[in-house]
Amino acid sequence: MTAPRPGEPSVLPPADARSARPVLRNDTFLRALRREPTDHTPVWLMRQAGRYLPEYNRTRARAGSFMTLAQTPELATEVTLQPLERYPLDAAILFSDILTVPDAMGLGLSFAEGEGPRFERTVRDEAAVASLAAPDMAKLRYVFDAVASIRRALAGRVPLIGFAGSPFTLACYMIEGGGSDDFATVRTMAAARPDLLARIVEVNARAVAAYLREQILAGADAVMIFDTWGGMLSAAAYRRHSLASMRAVLDALAADPAARATPTIVFTKGGGGWLDEIAACGAAAVGLDWTVDLAQARARVGARVALQGNLDPLVLLTDPATVAREAAAVVEAAGPAPGHVFNLGHGIVPRTPPENVAVLVDAVHRASRRRR
Amino acid sequence: MTAPRPGEPSVLPPADARSARPVLRNDTFLRALRREPTDHTPVWLMRQAGRYLPEYNRTRARAGSFMTLAQTPELATEVTLQPLERYPLDAAILFSDILTVPDAMGLGLSFAEGEGPRFERTVRDEAAVASLAAPDMAKLRYVFDAVASIRRALAGRVPLIGFAGSPFTLACYMIEGGGSDDFATVRTMAAARPDLLARIVEVNARAVAAYLREQILAGADAVMIFDTWGGMLSAAAYRRHSLASMRAVLDALAADPAARATPTIVFTKGGGGWLDEIAACGAAAVGLDWTVDLAQARARVGARVALQGNLDPLVLLTDPATVAREAAAVVEAAGPAPGHVFNLGHGIVPRTPPENVAVLVDAVHRASRRRR
Repeated sequence: MTAPRPGEPSVLPPADARSARPVLRNDTFLRALRREPTDHTPVWLMRQAGRYLPEYNRTRARAGSFMTLAQTPELATEVTLQPLERYPLDAAILFSDILTVPDAMGLGLSFAEGEGPRFERTVRDEAAVASLAAPDMAKLRYVFDAVASIRRALAGRVPLIGFAGSPFTLACYMIEGGGSDDFATVRTMAAARPDLLARIVEVNARAVAAYLREQILAGADAVMIFDTWGGMLSAAAYRRHSLASMRAVLDALAADPAARATPTIVFTKGGGGWLDEIAACGAAAVGLDWTVDLAQARARVGARVALQGNLDPLVLLTDPATVAREAAAVVEAAGPAPGHVFNLGHGIVPRTPPENVAVLVDAVHRASRRRR
Repeated sequence: MTAPRPGEPSVLPPADARSARPVLRNDTFLRALRREPTDHTPVWLMRQAGRYLPEYNRTRARAGSFMTLAQTPELATEVTLQPLERYPLDAAILFSDILTVPDAMGLGLSFAEGEGPRFERTVRDEAAVASLAAPDMAKLRYVFDAVASIRRALAGRVPLIGFAGSPFTLACYMIEGGGSDDFATVRTMAAARPDLLARIVEVNARAVAAYLREQILAGADAVMIFDTWGGMLSAAAYRRHSLASMRAVLDALAADPAARATPTIVFTKGGGGWLDEIAACGAAAVGLDWTVDLAQARARVGARVALQGNLDPLVLLTDPATVAREAAAVVEAAGPAPGHVFNLGHGIVPRTPPENVAVLVDAVHRASRRRR
C-alpha cells in the first residue's frame, strides 16, 4: 500500500483547529498509552456517547436519522461531549461510525430504524472489486470538521480519540452488504478467493490510513482501529487479511511526519489467542475484550505495549456494588506497571443504567489511586 | 461434587450391550486420542448426522418432531449411522441433544419449528436453584438405550462417541430458558450472584458425570463434553464456572473403575486463549475451534493431550478444490506427532453440500497417509 504522502495537502483549510492545539489539562490517557506513570488509571468507554444516555436520544431524535447525527459536526460535537458532562472520563471519542469510509466509496450506506447498517451495493465479485478505490477524503470532510469542532469544544479538558474500522472489518460489511450472523460470504471468500478478499482489504487499508491521517491533522490526539470481526477468522486468515492490513495502516502513519507522534490503539474482538502477534503490529496499545485474563496478557506482552480494557460491558447491567467490585478487580489484574487504560471489553449496551457508569468511573479512579 | 459411586447399579438391565463389546475393526480414532501412531488421521465431524443430509431430513419428517427423533432409540440409531453409510468416517457420535439433561430435571424442553430450544421453566432465583437436583438417570434411559442400539448396529465398524453439554453450557440454557444472543442473564449472574451460578453448575456437574457414566456403561467408546458457551465468560468466570466443573466431571469419571479407561474430550468454543489451562483439566483430548492456530496449539500443549479440530465449517460451503486444500492445510498444521483427530471447528451447517463432505473425508485420509 502507498502511505499518504507526507507533503500531501489536507482536505481541511489551513486555518482550522490544527493551528491551535490547546495544552491538555488531563493527559493521563496519553501518558498511559506511552506507558508512563500516572496518578490514576485513565478510563473511557467504548460507545460512551450513545443510546444509554437520555440526552443522546434527545439529540438523536432532533437529528432525525443516525446519518444526519454523524454528518452534522455541531450535533456530533454535542453528543461526543455529553458523557463528559456526566462523568470524569479521561478521554473523549469522536462520535461517528466505522462505515463512513465505505459509504464515501459510493456503496450507499443507510440505517433502517431498529435494524443494522445496509449498503445498496455489495463488493463480492471481480467487477465490483476492480472498480473499488480509496475515497476522496473531501467526501469525509464532515468527519474531520467534527474532529476540529469537538477539539475546540473540549478546550484541552481531555484528549480526543479518532477512529476507523479495520480494513478487514470494513470489508466484512462491504462484502455482506451489512451485518451478518455468521459472515458466511466473507468466510467462504477467505477460503475460496483469498486473492479477491486481499484486494478489497488493500484498498481499505489505503483508505483507513488516509482517513486516520486526516483525523490526526484535524486534531485527534490518538487514533484507534476497531477490528470487530477479525476474531471470526482462522488464525492464518486473520494474519493475512486483518492483522497485516492493520500493520500496513500503522506503518503508513508511522512513516508520516504529521501522524507519527500520535499514539495508536488496535482492538480485535476475540483476538485474545493471538495477543503476542497483535502486540507486535506496531500500535502503542492493544485493546482486549473481556474474555482475556488481563494479568496473563500483561505477563505475555511485557512492556512492549499499553493494554486497554477489559470489563464485560454487561456488568454495567448489575448493581452498583457489583460494578465497583468488578471494576476494581480489572484495575487489580492490570498490575502495578504503567500502561493500562481502563475500558470495557466491548461497547456499552443501550439498556445500561447511566448511574452505574458513574459508579464505574469513580471505582476505577479510586481503586487505581489506592494502589499508587 | 459426589462421583457416581463405583458399585452403583446402572439404569440398564445387566444383559444389555455392555456384555458384548465387539472388537473394533477401525480403532484409529481411539488410538489418536491415546496419542498412539495411526496410519491415517481419523476424522469425524460435529453434527455429521444432521440437516445437511436428505436422508436425515426424511427420518426427521417421519419422526414428526426433533424430540421424538432423539427419544426413539431405533430412529436415533438410524440417523447416527446415516453419515457412515456415505463417508468412511472414523467414528460415530450418538444422535441426541445436550438439553436432554435439564429436560430430565423437569424443566420442560421443547423445540418450536424453525426456532431454538425452549424451557417451560427457568432457573434463575434462589427458589428455583434450591429445588434443582441431578435427575434420576432412569428418565434418560432412552439415551442409554440409543447408545446400546447404535453400538449393536455399528458391530465394531468404528468407535461410538457419547456426549454431554458442559455443566456451564447447560446452565446457560436453564437460566435464560433457551438460546440467547448475548446470554445477558447468565453474564450478569456471573458478576452479581456467582454463588447462585456456582450452585446450578454444581448440580449440573453431578448430573453430567452420572449421565456420561451411563453412556459408557451402555457402550460409548469415548465421551465428549461440549462447552458451547464457556467462551463468552471472563477468564476468571470461565475458570470458576466452566473449567472447574468440567474438571469435576472428569475427576468423577476417572475415579470410577467402570469409566476411567474411556477417553474424554473437552471442547470450549472460543477457548483458544485458555488452551494451557484447558489442556491440564484431565481430558485425553481438547477440541479446538477454527480460530486456533493448530501448530501453535500443539507447540503449547506438547504431548500432554490429543487435539481435535479445527477446520472452519463454512469452508464446506465452497468448492471441492478449496475443501481439499484447506483440509490438507489442517492436517499439515497438526504436525507429525501422533494425537490429532480431524474435525471441524464447530458443527456442519445445514446448507452444506453432502458432496463436499465426501471430498473432505477423503482429503484428510489422503493428506495424512502421504505424510506418514
